[in-house]
Amino acid sequence: MAPAKVPETMRRGWIVPVGGAEKKDDNPVILRRFVNICGGAESRIAVIPTASELEDTGQRYEQLFLALGAGKARSLDYRRRSDTESPDLLKQLGKATGIFLTGGNQLRITTILGGTAVARSIRALNAAGVSVGGTSAGAAVLSEHMVAFGESGATPVAGRVTLAPGLGLTNRVVIDQHFRERDRIGRLLAALALNPFAVGVGLDEDTAAFIDPDDVLHVVGSGAVTIIDANQLEHSSMGSAESGQAICMTGLKLHILPGGGIFDLRQRVAQAPPGTLD
Amino acid sequence: MAPAKVPETMRRGWIVPVGGAEKKDDNPVILRRFVNICGGAESRIAVIPTASELEDTGQRYEQLFLALGAGKARSLDYRRRSDTESPDLLKQLGKATGIFLTGGNQLRITTILGGTAVARSIRALNAAGVSVGGTSAGAAVLSEHMVAFGESGATPVAGRVTLAPGLGLTNRVVIDQHFRERDRIGRLLAALALNPFAVGVGLDEDTAAFIDPDDVLHVVGSGAVTIIDANQLEHSSMGSAESGQAICMTGLKLHILPGGGIFDLRQRVAQAPPGTLD
Repeated sequence: MAPAKVPETMRRGWIVPVGGAEKKDDNPVILRRFVNICGGAESRIAVIPTASELEDTGQRYEQLFLALGAGKARSLDYRRRSDTESPDLLKQLGKATGIFLTGGNQLRITTILGGTAVARSIRALNAAGVSVGGTSAGAAVLSEHMVAFGESGATPVAGRVTLAPGLGLTNRVVIDQHFRERDRIGRLLAALALNPFAVGVGLDEDTAAFIDPDDVLHVVGSGAVTIIDANQLEHSSMGSAESGQAICMTGLKLHILPGGGIFDLRQRVAQAPPGTLD
Repeated sequence: MAPAKVPETMRRGWIVPVGGAEKKDDNPVILRRFVNICGGAESRIAVIPTASELEDTGQRYEQLFLALGAGKARSLDYRRRSDTESPDLLKQLGKATGIFLTGGNQLRITTILGGTAVARSIRALNAAGVSVGGTSAGAAVLSEHMVAFGESGATPVAGRVTLAPGLGLTNRVVIDQHFRERDRIGRLLAALALNPFAVGVGLDEDTAAFIDPDDVLHVVGSGAVTIIDANQLEHSSMGSAESGQAICMTGLKLHILPGGGIFDLRQRVAQAPPGTLD
């Protein structure tokens, strides 16, 4: 779905995809920063553990956010589509100053929440200033076009990546996670080859892209964010490639940004971190 | 070592790194094309199996080249540094119209042949018009700076790649092989981060870069060649990164070229394959 329109008097909230396996105990910079942008001691964070099949994922993040100084944290445990009609859960969601989607399987999120009042609420809340983050599967699902599944590898191959509609908070990026750890640059390239309008964002584990209301992306964490900008793509053979065939792409721009790095998604300009990393 | 000077009246031979696991029986386009550029029925191909610890690697390639129409093919089995002083083997090498280095461990090639009359002869022969190819380890070793070893992964990390001097037929490229299959874009990026003057060439298996005497690279095979051009690099943090830290690199150019694709290493211009692939 397309992002909800930001009301004229308001600013959109942050969009915060995390590459998975973010630090939770020893110096959890990503989760701490997420609590801060949601309002710190004043924050009310809604955790959506729908991607996970584990019973305690929601409770675990509730405790993590509270330990990091969140005012409130509540897990909204949507397990089937009928759960999304619960007026109590919707009311809880409506009070959130931040929403966080856990890891698991992104197709669980889209098949359970897709097209429901919950998905519409998340988009509307984000447009109205509520920050929305997610890790691993919860990161992939934030964009309009998400990678549902695909094969690992360094070069793109036709027919080896499957896109699906995500929650649609932004259409400026296509996100892939566990990037270095699962070697996914090929499948992200294949996703961009289908239509190069978006920016490819590959997130290493314990690394996040904090996308601010002006669409400037700030890298936080111990790994790197790989930015693939296909804006000046000279050629893509995706239109004529057969399944299994290597795809031709020329004229891509590539930036590798560790913590402190910045990428302006509107101007498409990368900026290295200042001399010292935080 | 630096490439030998090409005598004024001569043209350098081709330089042909192959990504490993090239097809040998069913339509072996790479090996066939190598035989053709070496002179076809008139060719005399010297096989150097030094990288391999298997007994029969040299014989296997002798038979393959003969089956593909080579005039002669002879394995020169350098197993220790003292073998490189054999006048008979040097004489055989001097008659070659093509030289092919097999796969195995590239450090076996450099430790056994480095600094010997054999390495000097290979450079001088290439400068005088003899084509030199190699697969896998035999590909890595063709350039002046070679990747000795490193870790897999999509993003570059300081201290996780080790360069070593190669045979030095060209200093325009740094080569990595088994590229998609072993997910090596991170280590190739790390190699370029050390000094971005060269072009990174990542070769998938069963895929070769045929570099002609004018330094135009022609892709042949079933996979793709990933070209990383750091010529317009805006920033590299390698100078200040600590071991294990993700490296920042901004402003890289990236091209993915399947069979039929072309990259001009002097002009640094990529060209997609014509409509139909061969």
